[in-house]
Amino acid sequence: MPDDAAPVITILPEPPTYLADAVRDGGGVTAPLSATTSGLVVLAGEPLEQLEQVLREHSGIRWIQLYLAGADQWVPLMHQYPQIRWSSAKGAYSQPVGEYGLTLTLAMLRAVPAFARAKTWGPPQGTSLHGKRVVIVGAGGVGREILRLVSAFTRHTTVVRSRNEPVPGAERTVTNEGLDDALGGTDVVILAAAMTASTRHLIDERRLAQLPPHAVLVNIARGPLVDTDALTAALAEGRLAGAALDVTDPQPLPDGHPLWSEPHALITPHTAETEAMIRPHLANRVRENVRRFRNGEPPEGLVDPALGY
Amino acid sequence: MPDDAAPVITILPEPPTYLADAVRDGGGVTAPLSATTSGLVVLAGEPLEQLEQVLREHSGIRWIQLYLAGADQWVPLMHQYPQIRWSSAKGAYSQPVGEYGLTLTLAMLRAVPAFARAKTWGPPQGTSLHGKRVVIVGAGGVGREILRLVSAFTRHTTVVRSRNEPVPGAERTVTNEGLDDALGGTDVVILAAAMTASTRHLIDERRLAQLPPHAVLVNIARGPLVDTDALTAALAEGRLAGAALDVTDPQPLPDGHPLWSEPHALITPHTAETEAMIRPHLANRVRENVRRFRNGEPPEGLVDPALGY
Repeated sequence: MPDDAAPVITILPEPPTYLADAVRDGGGVTAPLSATTSGLVVLAGEPLEQLEQVLREHSGIRWIQLYLAGADQWVPLMHQYPQIRWSSAKGAYSQPVGEYGLTLTLAMLRAVPAFARAKTWGPPQGTSLHGKRVVIVGAGGVGREILRLVSAFTRHTTVVRSRNEPVPGAERTVTNEGLDDALGGTDVVILAAAMTASTRHLIDERRLAQLPPHAVLVNIARGPLVDTDALTAALAEGRLAGAALDVTDPQPLPDGHPLWSEPHALITPHTAETEAMIRPHLANRVRENVRRFRNGEPPEGLVDPALGY
Repeated sequence: MPDDAAPVITILPEPPTYLADAVRDGGGVTAPLSATTSGLVVLAGEPLEQLEQVLREHSGIRWIQLYLAGADQWVPLMHQYPQIRWSSAKGAYSQPVGEYGLTLTLAMLRAVPAFARAKTWGPPQGTSLHGKRVVIVGAGGVGREILRLVSAFTRHTTVVRSRNEPVPGAERTVTNEGLDDALGGTDVVILAAAMTASTRHLIDERRLAQLPPHAVLVNIARGPLVDTDALTAALAEGRLAGAALDVTDPQPLPDGHPLWSEPHALITPHTAETEAMIRPHLANRVRENVRRFRNGEPPEGLVDPALGY
């Protein structure tokens, strides 16, 4: 039952039942946008300009829960409204996204895209993940979940992270300064890093050249982490064995882009976490953060606008 | 160094260096076929008729190591030559084959074949393995390895085996009599059973009808475990969500077969374990079994001709 202390939470653009339930279970009340709204839950389909207007016109808002793990597109707004606490879904979707990172890695190593396109029985192809060297860029929830899954196949894991602090379970942890060296000796690179000013084009022409030609690149993070033109050229020239991209730059990847017909590329339409997959996890995050908001505690997944995630 | 007690082992059709080394490391001597040959290692490319002739003409042969995990094609010969001990590679390739079972499972659930065939950015698709119900048919090395890998995603695992003995790590173990019931409540079926008289067309019209329409079938064992015509019809009529077949019946699957153009099928050319992947495992098996043969011990992977594996 709602009570006087229950914060009024507005879900934008439209409140689905499962999230209205989560707000209620966390001790809040959902209501349409009004002067009493103190918290927002922002879902897919709420345009940035619309949200900006909402914030301009509703000064009572003190907390915003974003539905995505990557908060990069909202960072300018965060700087505009520093009195608001912003929380993302970071860490909440690690299960499906990590699973997808392993799925794409295994699919590329085992030549599944080539088999899927074939119309005739061909020769055996593919290589095993067992004993391979894997570089995981990013030590957030997704990176750590990928590490857990990949460790069922190999112990040669290197995690690249910004902080100089070992990740449990990784054979090696390096900071961004160690990335170049790590790429030179790897078989697989999986990108699971946040999109920030310093990670834009993290994988560029120079870094692609450091990868051995048999290496495979997997991006389940954000498209602009990779220089698409440089990657396209590397694949076309056989300087890289394959790339699986769940995110692209530009995104969506336009029809007719050379990557659509590149035999060693696999493009998937940002599907590491589908709406159905994230529901239970987003509900958990919303429930927990409404509870914390009501109690004046900092939310889970609090975004640091200076870091951008 | 060879010594007087070293058994003479012939590798057919041709001895690759890595296996000649394995024979030597196990305490044997490799030599071309002769009256002194007491053991054989039979590789791909040695026709069954040829082998039959070899056995007819070389009565000193007391042990044969087969390169495949599934020994079904040699069973008639085993009955003809009961004085010979036959060992297969069963259990030896569990790592790559188990990995491939997970690869195909994840690829099917995550719609990778559809994405691989697409030339345009489409809507998100796919479902997660997390929390799904998985039936694994077969409790040999491969079945147990698949169980290990799948358990990183779900605890709802049922192993179907002939013996009435629980498989550690499985939520449920049933005998073949429990298969029908298990199929009715599953999301994924993975076939990892040996090919025997009793497993032929294990998945037939009737059993396909028991599977829920959203279920996915993965076969990394032997083609005839599945009634191909029944499966083709079930996929065409939407009574099954998908099938990934690394083995087919007939095999190779002929050009123009409807499964080549079935959107919910993925056909791969018996590539769960490639020649490069099996090398280290086959070398281990040969080394160990030459050692045992020399010492008069029964080989690892001893085949029971009555069971057929």
